[in-house]
Amino acid sequence: MAGLSSFIDVAENSHFPIQNLPYGVFSTGNEDPQIGVAIGDKILSLKRLSSFFDGPNLVNNQNVFLEKNLNSFMALGYEAWQEARTTIQNLLRSDNDVLRDNAELRSQAFFSQSDATMHMPVVIGDYTDFYSSIHHATNVGTMFRGRDNALMPNWKHIPVGYHGRASSVVVSGTPIRRPVGQTKPNENAPPVFGPCKLLDFELETAFIVGTGNKLGEPISIKNAHKHIFGMVLMNDWSARDIQKWEYVPLGPFLGKNFGTSISPWVVTMEALAPFAIPNYPKDVEILPYLKHDDNYAFNINLSVAIRDKDMVEPAVVCKSNFKYMYWTMKQQLVHHSISGCNTQTGDLYGSGTISGLEQDSFGSMLELCWKGTRTVDLGNGKSRKFLQDGDNVILSGFCQGENYRVGFGTCEGEVLPAIDASQF
Amino acid sequence: MAGLSSFIDVAENSHFPIQNLPYGVFSTGNEDPQIGVAIGDKILSLKRLSSFFDGPNLVNNQNVFLEKNLNSFMALGYEAWQEARTTIQNLLRSDNDVLRDNAELRSQAFFSQSDATMHMPVVIGDYTDFYSSIHHATNVGTMFRGRDNALMPNWKHIPVGYHGRASSVVVSGTPIRRPVGQTKPNENAPPVFGPCKLLDFELETAFIVGTGNKLGEPISIKNAHKHIFGMVLMNDWSARDIQKWEYVPLGPFLGKNFGTSISPWVVTMEALAPFAIPNYPKDVEILPYLKHDDNYAFNINLSVAIRDKDMVEPAVVCKSNFKYMYWTMKQQLVHHSISGCNTQTGDLYGSGTISGLEQDSFGSMLELCWKGTRTVDLGNGKSRKFLQDGDNVILSGFCQGENYRVGFGTCEGEVLPAIDASQF
Repeated sequence: MAGLSSFIDVAENSHFPIQNLPYGVFSTGNEDPQIGVAIGDKILSLKRLSSFFDGPNLVNNQNVFLEKNLNSFMALGYEAWQEARTTIQNLLRSDNDVLRDNAELRSQAFFSQSDATMHMPVVIGDYTDFYSSIHHATNVGTMFRGRDNALMPNWKHIPVGYHGRASSVVVSGTPIRRPVGQTKPNENAPPVFGPCKLLDFELETAFIVGTGNKLGEPISIKNAHKHIFGMVLMNDWSARDIQKWEYVPLGPFLGKNFGTSISPWVVTMEALAPFAIPNYPKDVEILPYLKHDDNYAFNINLSVAIRDKDMVEPAVVCKSNFKYMYWTMKQQLVHHSISGCNTQTGDLYGSGTISGLEQDSFGSMLELCWKGTRTVDLGNGKSRKFLQDGDNVILSGFCQGENYRVGFGTCEGEVLPAIDASQF
Repeated sequence: MAGLSSFIDVAENSHFPIQNLPYGVFSTGNEDPQIGVAIGDKILSLKRLSSFFDGPNLVNNQNVFLEKNLNSFMALGYEAWQEARTTIQNLLRSDNDVLRDNAELRSQAFFSQSDATMHMPVVIGDYTDFYSSIHHATNVGTMFRGRDNALMPNWKHIPVGYHGRASSVVVSGTPIRRPVGQTKPNENAPPVFGPCKLLDFELETAFIVGTGNKLGEPISIKNAHKHIFGMVLMNDWSARDIQKWEYVPLGPFLGKNFGTSISPWVVTMEALAPFAIPNYPKDVEILPYLKHDDNYAFNINLSVAIRDKDMVEPAVVCKSNFKYMYWTMKQQLVHHSISGCNTQTGDLYGSGTISGLEQDSFGSMLELCWKGTRTVDLGNGKSRKFLQDGDNVILSGFCQGENYRVGFGTCEGEVLPAIDASQF
């Protein structure tokens, strides 16, 4: 794989070599959004090349590449995804002259990423957020219940999760307005209304379901991988003060639903396969429906950086890794459907905040600053306990191969000031 | 209003007189689903009559009545809804000869409800369930935390709610398969896997958002009514044993997402307006963004009945009323959006279980049988603590006017046996 190369120039630290080939939806100028694949600093339009998909699963479904999102393509299923990847990889290989030596077709098929506007890659049906990083769950539990009761009794038996808000999932680059709402800063006084004061990011990834299951028919662990199309980075913006007052007993609500950002490029499970590593060791016996032996953890380097209006370079505040996930994505999906809950093409399933063991690997300001008891240094005398207006939060992630990277690009969002709460 | 009558015969106890005119989506034979309005025991096809909608808001949008769900119609907004209602009511009036005396048009436009299959009336974007009945919240709180701590400190300040699962919302008549999952029957032993043993209904209503708000732009309480299109009955099926083990700290998940049933007819807020009554008195000061003085509680009689395979007549197990809601639907919607969360055409917002003060008005088996400490009588020597396979649960609801009823029909669902859990 490492020796594979494209006739398109790809810098060594690029996230998008021929080994990756993530799918996204982009537009240029006044054109409609279209489906493309990232290669180096370019985008290959699949709309312009739809007729090249002539394998048995796609030859009669080329129209899926003319659509404005990935849903119809994903709905074709696992074999079709593999076939598409082979076709695209072949078209881009340095030793294939079909596209390489056709100047006119190349001029129609390639776009510069710098000229493109990225859109939501999929139409999301439902969005669920899990809570599957053991260090994050332990950190939050320790802060609020003490070290001895940090993990709830169910945590090592169940990939704990909750239903989130699909409507407010936005693509990277969309600004996020600081929410207003109820908080209770004084234990002995009534709640107050106003802008969130404890605005946070959460470093997450998410997977996208390519094909779902019917209501009442759970997905088995042995088939789970065939339902998972790919992954994105995700920032699960969180209003800690709103969340704290509202969340007992029914879980997070307005503290989360004002915005969730995802990266525009969907990295496929095929591209991530070389970076699979042994699953996180489990010290508690789990029920058979969740058990699998094959490696489905992945070595994905993750980071978070913050850049305010005055900074040229963002300051990295966290370096984490997807390998810290206690539960695999297959376990999350199987658990979600075991009740009979139907999943659907385009569903989004978040990992939960991914924190490592060390302080600089914590995936939220809540943990990095340990409930506001310390600060994070941004350089030049600047520091933060929580996010300020104008802060741009930049998530990044990649797998390191031999002389190449399979990456996600970035997932970014700038904090806008709150609305005038006095009008409500 | 009471004197208004249609040339279509409407029985006195019918839920669908000319004062109601709820919207639904139906099909007959092999025809595609289409939009209709219930009148007596008939359905008026709006597809066949779309050209009659010639008012300023609809004359150029008649195509919305040719669609297979209500979303495009609802998205036209408040004034269009009122205009449509006036047009339909005029067409059906006994003193209007346009439809009454046109035998051919009548034969094309009317269908028997008994011949029709009902479909989901709307495409749901997001589904949220609130927890707004004070007696239900007090009952559940008392069972699990004792009477003195029954209501959480936030309950009288916040219309508490949580994001639910939209994909598994189904129309009345769809069977519901008993879920399998993890439960922990023995405190001192590991969790076990198998069929839910404590399957329950929840008597709820839900409102449907007709027009939403943009991300970052909350809905104000004075405009909230213009966003609410209408209401349905809802059964929020619940697996109490699964829910108990999973729900701390992130809220209900698999205990709820295996199925939620709604009634097929959407009763508009215009039809319910004559039944508005004073809002539930609040003994705690609420924040200004939630305050409104106009009546937006409604006197809606609600009931739940159970019929097993051997019973001819269902046994009524609960009689409740929508008037027991502490928070109004306007308060729920405004609170939901105050963070900036965007709502969308087709969103579904559940009331939470609606229980009254008396034991026979409790809206769930959990409450009726008080955690399994007593039984509910179904007659003929039959009783229940929770639901059994084959039980059909029938919700019904109506407002009683002078010699007429504005009703919802029923919301029904039969419990199917669980899948074979040993295969997982």
